[in-house]
Amino acid sequence: MTEIKRNISKVKGFKVAGVHAGLKADGALDMALIYSETPCVAAGVFTTNQVKAAPVLVDQETLAKNNTHIRAVIINTKCANACTGQHGLDNARLMQRWTAARLGIGEDEVLVMSTGVIGTQLDMAKIECGIALAVDGLGDENWEAAARAIMTTDTRPKFHSIRMVAGKGQEYRRNLAGIAKGAGMIAPNMATMLGLLATDAYLEPNEIQNTLKRIADRSFNRIVVDGDMSTNDTLLLLANGHKDDLLAYHPVAFPIHAAYIAENLARDIVRDGEGATKFITLRIDGAPDNETARQIGNAIATSPLVKTAFYGGDANWGRIIAAAGRSGVAVDPAKMSLTFQSDDGKDALKLFEGGVPTQYDESAATALVKADSVTVILDCGMGSESATIWTCDLSHDYISINGHYRS
Amino acid sequence: MTEIKRNISKVKGFKVAGVHAGLKADGALDMALIYSETPCVAAGVFTTNQVKAAPVLVDQETLAKNNTHIRAVIINTKCANACTGQHGLDNARLMQRWTAARLGIGEDEVLVMSTGVIGTQLDMAKIECGIALAVDGLGDENWEAAARAIMTTDTRPKFHSIRMVAGKGQEYRRNLAGIAKGAGMIAPNMATMLGLLATDAYLEPNEIQNTLKRIADRSFNRIVVDGDMSTNDTLLLLANGHKDDLLAYHPVAFPIHAAYIAENLARDIVRDGEGATKFITLRIDGAPDNETARQIGNAIATSPLVKTAFYGGDANWGRIIAAAGRSGVAVDPAKMSLTFQSDDGKDALKLFEGGVPTQYDESAATALVKADSVTVILDCGMGSESATIWTCDLSHDYISINGHYRS
Repeated sequence: MTEIKRNISKVKGFKVAGVHAGLKADGALDMALIYSETPCVAAGVFTTNQVKAAPVLVDQETLAKNNTHIRAVIINTKCANACTGQHGLDNARLMQRWTAARLGIGEDEVLVMSTGVIGTQLDMAKIECGIALAVDGLGDENWEAAARAIMTTDTRPKFHSIRMVAGKGQEYRRNLAGIAKGAGMIAPNMATMLGLLATDAYLEPNEIQNTLKRIADRSFNRIVVDGDMSTNDTLLLLANGHKDDLLAYHPVAFPIHAAYIAENLARDIVRDGEGATKFITLRIDGAPDNETARQIGNAIATSPLVKTAFYGGDANWGRIIAAAGRSGVAVDPAKMSLTFQSDDGKDALKLFEGGVPTQYDESAATALVKADSVTVILDCGMGSESATIWTCDLSHDYISINGHYRS
Repeated sequence: MTEIKRNISKVKGFKVAGVHAGLKADGALDMALIYSETPCVAAGVFTTNQVKAAPVLVDQETLAKNNTHIRAVIINTKCANACTGQHGLDNARLMQRWTAARLGIGEDEVLVMSTGVIGTQLDMAKIECGIALAVDGLGDENWEAAARAIMTTDTRPKFHSIRMVAGKGQEYRRNLAGIAKGAGMIAPNMATMLGLLATDAYLEPNEIQNTLKRIADRSFNRIVVDGDMSTNDTLLLLANGHKDDLLAYHPVAFPIHAAYIAENLARDIVRDGEGATKFITLRIDGAPDNETARQIGNAIATSPLVKTAFYGGDANWGRIIAAAGRSGVAVDPAKMSLTFQSDDGKDALKLFEGGVPTQYDESAATALVKADSVTVILDCGMGSESATIWTCDLSHDYISINGHYRS
């Protein structure tokens, strides 16, 4: 038996801060610090972009040396510290060192995340000042401030938390908080997707990386805003539960609860996608395997024509079938069927089957597409595997936001 | 020695027509017919989309049986005849049969092209009427009318022609005309790219397919508007020169001249891309092979963030580097360099080299990007092969055009 309490305000042993270091011109919060009073088992999943930002390289290096006593994560906005060469790497390491010094911990116990414009160097005077302010500002209940401090073109902070209770006698009671930023997922210039999960549960050092990978596959790896991939994408998991505390370890319940939080953060990112007016759940059924289902789903979710049709409230299913057709998978239109469904699952309308459109009611199809959120189910008729992708439409606001991002 | 005369009005032995059959509501030309008085050696390159429109399937079938005595091509707009099942196939074959009957030639001597909305059946009464009108309207000099008759969201017809003269004594004098349509290359719902090249040269039946493939690789396969791929893309080449006419055959000069015409048509399609305000020539240098260069170029050309930056006149080079980084090629930012160049080649500005930005002048970079056309040169530092891709920006008008295409 499992119980859940949502929207808790703190996670045992963690102190966090969101401060203004002068990086954002408008006085908004622009640096965040996550600190654990005791060592954390930690893991990270990072962008697969060949062009990796300096903080990504530094975190990969740090976690390779030490994933059992991570103590802090320092995060800045406005500058991605990507395409910054050796100088950028030196600066990322300096952020580690300064944070460690202020907190009285080791350099290898600090991870770094950056987000913002590519190709400019960090303003290290402001970064140093921000680190001092953040250390001074640490508190138990500052999660939402931290979430706010990592925003770029995000219009709202993304913070979810949960108390997990599992076991007959409810022996396992642990807390989990997650913050993320995204907006233009995945927008290289914004070095976009950053996420952090912090828990007072215990996780085995040799299990945590796989656990985080599975959590990411069920959440952040399911979302598409524009198909671009950041140089900075990073998701970190910090677990400060003690290994001798038997009640802190629940390898079955934890991934489920963590995926729930990560899913909520990922959906928030899509809902707050740059210029997004519509939340689209894309379910690819009847695939030979999950990877193939994802490949088809990604082709649809990144199609400008599919996305603009949803923006226009046009039930233009032909674009979905055509995008599946160019996905690189040997789909057969005669075996496919396409259904639009309302988000509550009450209304469903099959539009295409056996290679031809059904005799569907165009006004009913339009009504489904005009809603704030819609589920699209494409059955490929090639097997029994599925994948779900969350995406949004492509609107005039996306063009406006990204046509002049740097100015 | 080779001489060229541009903008000729007819090609020996070909008669063409562009007529209004009532498919377009506004009275505009909507069907085209290309007819050769003598048999043509012919070839076609077609969409690689798994979802192929009925006319694509019918043409592939027809050319497999007969590529030595093709006589006519019938083309309609407004309906792509895609996702139309067996009924759609029957209709495409009926278009062949009706055209053959009116012209007094064999069914297998007729090819068919369709463009328009996916998932609706052809209005065969109008098609039959249009075929009759087109046969009656055949004339030597109607190429521009034919180009106009195949337009969908194109804002202007695409027609180029050339008289090719080669040989010391100028023994080889042949004519070539090409028409195309595109606008939203490649936009599935518009079943977009159609092209036809007609010449009075002779081509060997066992060479023509490779020749056309090479021509396509140097022209239509270089262009990207939105990265979507049509169910209907078709490029046909018809050559009615007689094999006993020794002056009609020039296997060296012909592909060069034909590529010149095809390049012009392809560039017209990008310039007239849906909502396009800017023509971008993307040259990927220093690649290990041409295919890799194309892969990197396509990732950049389809990146919404790169395209919106160009629209905004923002020299946001970080997005180009990041798109290259996610192209699937193991690029190394430290080896890359990026240069923006004016279209006349006079002004060039290196923005990125050795993993970091150069000390370039931001206003000079902006001036280059704000021009109507710009050349972007990315040297990958991985080899000596190159590829060139022509693309356009992503604008508000693209969203407007595609948000409500069917209505």
